[in-house]
Amino acid sequence: MNQSFVKYIELPEPILGNNTADVERIKAVVKKEIGTESLFFPTPLAADLPKKLRSWNHRVKVVLFRDSMGWRVVDIVEPDKGRPVFGIAADLGTTRIVLRLINLESMTACGEVGFDNPQASIAPDVLARIHHARNEEGLIELQQLVISAFNQNIDLLCTAHTVEKITSQSIHLLTVAGNSAMTHLFLGVDPSFLIREPYIPALNVPEPLDAGELGIKINRRGMVYLFPNIGSYFGGDLISGILFAQLHRKENPCIMVDVGTNAEVVVGYRDWLIACAGAAGPALEGGISDMGMTAKPGVIDRVKIDPATGAVEVHTIGDRPPIGICGSGMIDLAAQLFLSGMLDIRGKFVPERCKERYFEKEGVGHFSVSEGGLKEPDSGSASGSNSEPDMGAIVLSQVEMNSLTSSKAAMYSILQVIIEKTAGLKFSDLAKFYVAGTFGSFINPESAISIGMLPDIPLEKFEVLGNSSLEGAAKLLMNPDSFEEIEEIRQGITYIELNVNQEFMNIFSGAKFYPHTDISRFPSVKLYHGQ
Amino acid sequence: MNQSFVKYIELPEPILGNNTADVERIKAVVKKEIGTESLFFPTPLAADLPKKLRSWNHRVKVVLFRDSMGWRVVDIVEPDKGRPVFGIAADLGTTRIVLRLINLESMTACGEVGFDNPQASIAPDVLARIHHARNEEGLIELQQLVISAFNQNIDLLCTAHTVEKITSQSIHLLTVAGNSAMTHLFLGVDPSFLIREPYIPALNVPEPLDAGELGIKINRRGMVYLFPNIGSYFGGDLISGILFAQLHRKENPCIMVDVGTNAEVVVGYRDWLIACAGAAGPALEGGISDMGMTAKPGVIDRVKIDPATGAVEVHTIGDRPPIGICGSGMIDLAAQLFLSGMLDIRGKFVPERCKERYFEKEGVGHFSVSEGGLKEPDSGSASGSNSEPDMGAIVLSQVEMNSLTSSKAAMYSILQVIIEKTAGLKFSDLAKFYVAGTFGSFINPESAISIGMLPDIPLEKFEVLGNSSLEGAAKLLMNPDSFEEIEEIRQGITYIELNVNQEFMNIFSGAKFYPHTDISRFPSVKLYHGQ
Repeated sequence: MNQSFVKYIELPEPILGNNTADVERIKAVVKKEIGTESLFFPTPLAADLPKKLRSWNHRVKVVLFRDSMGWRVVDIVEPDKGRPVFGIAADLGTTRIVLRLINLESMTACGEVGFDNPQASIAPDVLARIHHARNEEGLIELQQLVISAFNQNIDLLCTAHTVEKITSQSIHLLTVAGNSAMTHLFLGVDPSFLIREPYIPALNVPEPLDAGELGIKINRRGMVYLFPNIGSYFGGDLISGILFAQLHRKENPCIMVDVGTNAEVVVGYRDWLIACAGAAGPALEGGISDMGMTAKPGVIDRVKIDPATGAVEVHTIGDRPPIGICGSGMIDLAAQLFLSGMLDIRGKFVPERCKERYFEKEGVGHFSVSEGGLKEPDSGSASGSNSEPDMGAIVLSQVEMNSLTSSKAAMYSILQVIIEKTAGLKFSDLAKFYVAGTFGSFINPESAISIGMLPDIPLEKFEVLGNSSLEGAAKLLMNPDSFEEIEEIRQGITYIELNVNQEFMNIFSGAKFYPHTDISRFPSVKLYHGQ
Repeated sequence: MNQSFVKYIELPEPILGNNTADVERIKAVVKKEIGTESLFFPTPLAADLPKKLRSWNHRVKVVLFRDSMGWRVVDIVEPDKGRPVFGIAADLGTTRIVLRLINLESMTACGEVGFDNPQASIAPDVLARIHHARNEEGLIELQQLVISAFNQNIDLLCTAHTVEKITSQSIHLLTVAGNSAMTHLFLGVDPSFLIREPYIPALNVPEPLDAGELGIKINRRGMVYLFPNIGSYFGGDLISGILFAQLHRKENPCIMVDVGTNAEVVVGYRDWLIACAGAAGPALEGGISDMGMTAKPGVIDRVKIDPATGAVEVHTIGDRPPIGICGSGMIDLAAQLFLSGMLDIRGKFVPERCKERYFEKEGVGHFSVSEGGLKEPDSGSASGSNSEPDMGAIVLSQVEMNSLTSSKAAMYSILQVIIEKTAGLKFSDLAKFYVAGTFGSFINPESAISIGMLPDIPLEKFEVLGNSSLEGAAKLLMNPDSFEEIEEIRQGITYIELNVNQEFMNIFSGAKFYPHTDISRFPSVKLYHGQ
């Protein structure tokens, strides 16, 4: 059991008759301490070791890490106070990146910073970034963008940390969880073949690298670890999430759904794990991710409609005047519209129920979400784009509603295929339904059930994991045993390609209804029928 | 059984249903090929792998190497002709460095270059260099001198090789065998404590490093391997020599004596190995190494004296006019002087036998080796120094002869202690007597026996190994199984400190006589008694 990557050790003083070299004496003690037969000690670390060792009275702190071959020494650090050892855990998202600073000895989180993935300036989505990276210059450009952003924000974390004086030199480890494409780009590895049949990653299990080799400005001997991928569409962020949720250790089958840029699903427990990624279902592609604005102040995240009066009550992040609607707000809105009879079972606006909130423009129905001047909306994009919104009129078009319908149908179909067709379970067999990912965190399960996006299981089974990718990366830094777990997860997962065959299309067609053509699947969904 | 560090492999083409990543497909084939469970694949090698792999039709040459953790991929190379893979084996001597270029596929040596260790410009001997390296600037200065000299001579080797067009990029591996101090200095590792009691090296088993990290200009992904040391006074050059001589595999006890800057001795066979280093005997320190000039054109390397006439016949390297005498020439001379009665059993010149070749200067006896003008020699240093020699008179003083006497006595005493006192054998038990090292290569065993420097065993048991340090380094490049052998040797050797105690001094006193006080030890030595 290894509780930490930092070991404080005392060495026997060298004497005549036992003239074991300095490096070998350290190795012997560390090997015994962590119970390993072999330990890699990088030769350059020996350069100034003899004098250090003697000036520290043969006491040292050893920073350790692992690669696929076993344990390795990362650095030898002065044992006394004032020389803390830090690590950083990173969630490397396509859209957003979050770094968390962690003291590796006290095991405490000491700061967090989030920032947009700067690669979005080249291309917002994964596909376009991979295209951009098809030539070496493009690849290096994308890599440098993200590495620079990491470096700037690592500096920020150091500066902001005021408890102890730390510099980038105090940071010895960086663990990064990202999807396969982001992992390739971060490493400067050609991602071209991720998106071409037969969808072959360049590598699935990257060995940790020297920070210096990547240009990451932490301690010059620091190590950077990237979570392994399972395949092109199932990345390290998911492995990290499973590690955090401990899905591989559950007593009964559970499911974890990560709704981020894609929707990835893992179902299983200690005996088996089955995974699939939503990107394989084209209906979902660019669907859920484009479903709404990113959560930020002024964005509508919750909607309540009084079915009797048709009054729409919106909540915005930070209680600011509404500037748009985010994904979870969209699901809330669709659920409320449907439950109050303003959306029919095909997901179409019902004008007579929507009343004055309904209008048509160029033959397309629109629904005005927020009260206000009812100013003519331009191009119907107020809810879905990042352009300066029309403050007085948050409007949703039938086109956008259709897109949501496809997305929710794809989500349910994927869940049905993996749970029922692949695992041979019923939804009711699931002990837990974990919702991970930034977007997933805000979903109201009740609303998602109401529109038939998530299965109709007891609400208490739903558990929001938050940024499980970041949490898994942090867990690894705080518990070296996680290495074995990651390997266990990686080797234990069966990844299935979600072939879009006739069976899937049949399921998908039924799921495009609200909540579903098979209403027996949603016994708890009660529509408003009064006047 | 792994015959080569270069493996040609063909990969199954990726298909849907088996979307294993490129790196993992290569790893799987290589692991099977070399029969290993784990294989390190450096992440940066993946960067441009996908396109290469496809343009090479999924065929590659994989360059492999090992570290203490196991096998690692060094590089992935185009499989077709015109892209040979080379390595360099190096003997890193205190005085002289030799590099040998080896084609790692055809297993042929393709060139060799020797040059003086440029660190000699800072300090000629090991001790002074270590003192110079006590501060970081001095250490880096010494390291840079040797690294630069390596780079220049690697370029020379490439340029001189005309069979195939090779550049430094074609060189992927460098194996280096040197003594402990030279190994530390090459790696830029503080050697200070090698020479202070209790004589602790900074490291004994350096992990291979990236060539780039050391500044060695071979392929940017190339690996540099340094042979492990046993202790401060028993270095990688000896391990390399044992590997070459295969001492650890012999059926019967053998001895290997490396007479270079120091004299190191290993005795043993497949069951055990015992080693000691002559530097521990102060009588030898600066003794054998200073015994004569370095072998070069004009230096006397063989001497023959007609005991009847007293005529001295000298042979010089390159048959050039004599400019001095080298170590092996000194031993020959001493043997011939002694056998012809011109040197007594205490190693003193016998004036009445030396006749006109004997003269005194400031009360010190001198012997004129070469015929010529018998010009008055200045300061008696013509034979032992590198100063411009007096062409007409190669002269040896009694002081120099006394130094030789001490050296030969130390050599014999060390051999007696290790064979008789430590191993409990008799000299006659030795199946082979291997003489290694530059200086040792030129010794005439018969002469060395005559003066009591080497034991009186049958001449056919002596075998000159040549530059065994270089040969061992080359052997490693041509046979990866050598890794296990090196580890076997390293872990199997018992290193003994040659304490200069009363017993040693008693033995030493007897050995200072010619050939020895105990004449029964040298039955074959027959002095000239006729007139």
